[in-house]
Amino acid sequence: MTTIREATYDLLRRHGLTTIFGNPGSNELPFLAGMPEDFRYILGLHEGVVAGMADGYAQATRRPALVNLHAASGSGNAMGALTNAWYAHTPLVITAGQQVRSTIGQEVMLSNVDAVSLPRPLVKWSAEPASARDVVRTMGQAIHTTVLEPAGPVYVSIPYDDWAHETGPEEEHLGERTVETAGGLSDGQLADLVAALDAAARPVLVLGPDVDSAQGNDDAVRLAERLGAPVWVAPSASRCPFPTTHAAFRGVLPASVAGIAGLLAGHDLILVVGGPVFRYHQYEPGEYLPDGAALLQITCDPGEAARAPMGRAVVASIGPALRRLADAVVPRGVTVQPRPAAPVVPHQTDADGRMAPEAVFDVVNELAPEDAIYVNEATATVTAFWDRIQMRYPGSYYFPASGGLGFGMPAAVGVQLAEPGRRVIAFIGDGSANYGITALWTAAQHAIPVVFIILNNGTYGALRGFAAKLNALDAPGLDVPGIDFVSLAAGYGVDAGLAESVGELRDQVAKALASDRPTLVEVRISTVSPF
Amino acid sequence: MTTIREATYDLLRRHGLTTIFGNPGSNELPFLAGMPEDFRYILGLHEGVVAGMADGYAQATRRPALVNLHAASGSGNAMGALTNAWYAHTPLVITAGQQVRSTIGQEVMLSNVDAVSLPRPLVKWSAEPASARDVVRTMGQAIHTTVLEPAGPVYVSIPYDDWAHETGPEEEHLGERTVETAGGLSDGQLADLVAALDAAARPVLVLGPDVDSAQGNDDAVRLAERLGAPVWVAPSASRCPFPTTHAAFRGVLPASVAGIAGLLAGHDLILVVGGPVFRYHQYEPGEYLPDGAALLQITCDPGEAARAPMGRAVVASIGPALRRLADAVVPRGVTVQPRPAAPVVPHQTDADGRMAPEAVFDVVNELAPEDAIYVNEATATVTAFWDRIQMRYPGSYYFPASGGLGFGMPAAVGVQLAEPGRRVIAFIGDGSANYGITALWTAAQHAIPVVFIILNNGTYGALRGFAAKLNALDAPGLDVPGIDFVSLAAGYGVDAGLAESVGELRDQVAKALASDRPTLVEVRISTVSPF
Repeated sequence: MTTIREATYDLLRRHGLTTIFGNPGSNELPFLAGMPEDFRYILGLHEGVVAGMADGYAQATRRPALVNLHAASGSGNAMGALTNAWYAHTPLVITAGQQVRSTIGQEVMLSNVDAVSLPRPLVKWSAEPASARDVVRTMGQAIHTTVLEPAGPVYVSIPYDDWAHETGPEEEHLGERTVETAGGLSDGQLADLVAALDAAARPVLVLGPDVDSAQGNDDAVRLAERLGAPVWVAPSASRCPFPTTHAAFRGVLPASVAGIAGLLAGHDLILVVGGPVFRYHQYEPGEYLPDGAALLQITCDPGEAARAPMGRAVVASIGPALRRLADAVVPRGVTVQPRPAAPVVPHQTDADGRMAPEAVFDVVNELAPEDAIYVNEATATVTAFWDRIQMRYPGSYYFPASGGLGFGMPAAVGVQLAEPGRRVIAFIGDGSANYGITALWTAAQHAIPVVFIILNNGTYGALRGFAAKLNALDAPGLDVPGIDFVSLAAGYGVDAGLAESVGELRDQVAKALASDRPTLVEVRISTVSPF
Repeated sequence: MTTIREATYDLLRRHGLTTIFGNPGSNELPFLAGMPEDFRYILGLHEGVVAGMADGYAQATRRPALVNLHAASGSGNAMGALTNAWYAHTPLVITAGQQVRSTIGQEVMLSNVDAVSLPRPLVKWSAEPASARDVVRTMGQAIHTTVLEPAGPVYVSIPYDDWAHETGPEEEHLGERTVETAGGLSDGQLADLVAALDAAARPVLVLGPDVDSAQGNDDAVRLAERLGAPVWVAPSASRCPFPTTHAAFRGVLPASVAGIAGLLAGHDLILVVGGPVFRYHQYEPGEYLPDGAALLQITCDPGEAARAPMGRAVVASIGPALRRLADAVVPRGVTVQPRPAAPVVPHQTDADGRMAPEAVFDVVNELAPEDAIYVNEATATVTAFWDRIQMRYPGSYYFPASGGLGFGMPAAVGVQLAEPGRRVIAFIGDGSANYGITALWTAAQHAIPVVFIILNNGTYGALRGFAAKLNALDAPGLDVPGIDFVSLAAGYGVDAGLAESVGELRDQVAKALASDRPTLVEVRISTVSPF
């Protein structure tokens, strides 16, 4: 006899979902008991961290990740993290243990009442199978749904007494099922887009995060080079879709209507690939497009296409679309001049013992391997980061896609787990770090060698930037003084040090990069504006 | 001219909501800028902690508390905590800043898409006013809804550009509105209930958390004494509705069908007041009621009444109902004999340097003031706690009402803030502590003198108990080794020590109780079964 539990493990194995990110409770034990030896369980001490680790892991592997949470409380703890997973198009199969089927209606302790509603609207789909006999098919539906474009998190609640039931004919064909998206451009659509690009006098590319998800980076380079077009990264960048070392790279667009139109002035065609049009943040109204410019958007997400306030949108799979466009446009033989180098910033501490964040980025950029991966949740210093850190390869950058704090610490752990051959360096603000601080423990327990660099300025720096814009600098709650991250790291078993000079920073980062264990380096920085 | 923002602060002031628990982002700044001087802002470093502090504060003050969170990410981070607030009937007005009204549809960064769905099903009501002109009335509706019986959390999303709008005639009468529940028993209902109680040969009382919320504790004592009835606390106790020092006190009922029926055998009438019938947890099916027993339930919650699988239920306000019953039943002149004393446990460390949790409770019980308040999230040792800690007064005990971990650390801070004249002692498991560890920072910043006692056994002890019951001891993720809470406390600015002997425990607890600042005492304990 095969149980529902065994059939589910078989299905997960077939789809490569053999890493379980979780935090268990009583409802989850019957599934987890006797977990097969080819599965591994990555425990997080808080479900926000569990979801963040899985998000990083899934983004970096470009495959769905499995999450196992405890009932409504554990699921609820993870919901903030789902805002990021949703906008990152991260494929996450989130399962939650439910109480014994016959007792849910009584709302016994740890029953997940109306479980299907709970994760909405932050999942693509949620379900609780109405019978044990439908659990395996429901899990299959979850795995297929999460990866179909646009990818995104799904949620399944499973009563714990279902696992021991016997399978039946319902499960017979599930293992062999395959489900895929065909999102290729028709020849007519391709010809039309190529004609528009070839006809443009001064085209510009704006690349969104899904270019990197689709590993379209090299095709984006080819397309830009053939068009002789400069390349911007779409605002609020959560991935790095284009090598920052390329002459055509211009930086990240600002996240305001007026800011974007200003920077793109002079172009007659704006081609946006793999992202929304646009993910604005600060409210600075104005013209949506520069004078005389048309906008073309290629996105894998029908929602992004439909809700944009301007432009012609084509919903397509990003990778193949970019490749075909790069193949088809007429090479112009024009080379874009590189942008000016970032200004030199002194590598020293100020009278208060603080370093400029630019100096920190310079030091790390110099010491880091060329293929280092950066996870960034130091939100006030994002501009300086992109000005100074060089990223050359796909999958080199992860930032919270919805701006939800608490992604950085755990995502760094998940990305490093997914990419053992590369080195993950996480820049985390002292405000941000507290939303996911327990990720340090998982890194220590599994010897996951992330280099955590805490940029400590004692304040919510990005928020101070907004407060200055909104005339709200007298708002309460802007500062976070009195946190000693070296002690926090020690508490969770991570080696750590405070770098009090540029020399110490250099030494500690070098040592961290040489270690096969996680390390935290705390550095006091001066506060800069995010704008 | 009066702005929507000013009118909202006026309304909050009228209802006594002058403490704001929050974690701000850009969307919240226009509300928080220039916060009036009679308001105070309590910053939490994670929204789960913010909600937990507010939950403790609201339960202890028996008044609604105001929470201000950041958009969908911040709200999502707080959702696990809402499972506890929901089942505790905690009145919480949760507000979330929304992006600029005209930009929400575009899903700009930090817009809260479908904000009204987000917190469901964990709130009584949620809203996003459709116009700035309806914000103040909506806030009034939120305040009234949260306190009307059964109390529970509500959620309001407010676009940040609404605050600067001018008020109109819509707001004119809002300040004077009062809204209240009449939930008194009719004379006929009272007579009927009293007749049933007087006719019972061997009645027993089972008291739920809402007896303590309604401060019905003294009336419960009177009722028990007149009836000569023993008193149990309802299973999965989240409050202490009856003095544990009273001879009639029998302890907390177990959270299983078979367990309860077994312990209540011999009684012919079970009167349940102020709680569900019953909040079971572990699945041990059996007869719902002992042979020959009838069950009467008095609850303030129509949901609790309707979903119970047995008994006659009366939905009524708990305080007045208990008072009238205590006045009306015929005194029997019977005295209940006290339960046997808890067994003596040696006050010493074992060969591994661990203390029995019973010894820890004995030491604290001896040193603590008689009116100490206990916040408990050491779930494996709950039975030992109730056997040994003496609680005499209303509002002496808080435990996560839905079993959601992460309540204890922040709730202790919130309760202590609400009760400056009493001393809060928090027993927190080493697993539990990590879900809300940043509450230490808020305690340190505001010098909120909670005594945190971390019971460290390196494992999820309650989960191990369930694993033993469910034959799942080989499940992954049961242990949490390698955490040094003294370092974590230092990281967040809280004085801390590891008590390595009973003498050190005694000294450190005494010192903590003498301090006007928060203190953390870590003690290694042996693992016990929660059952």
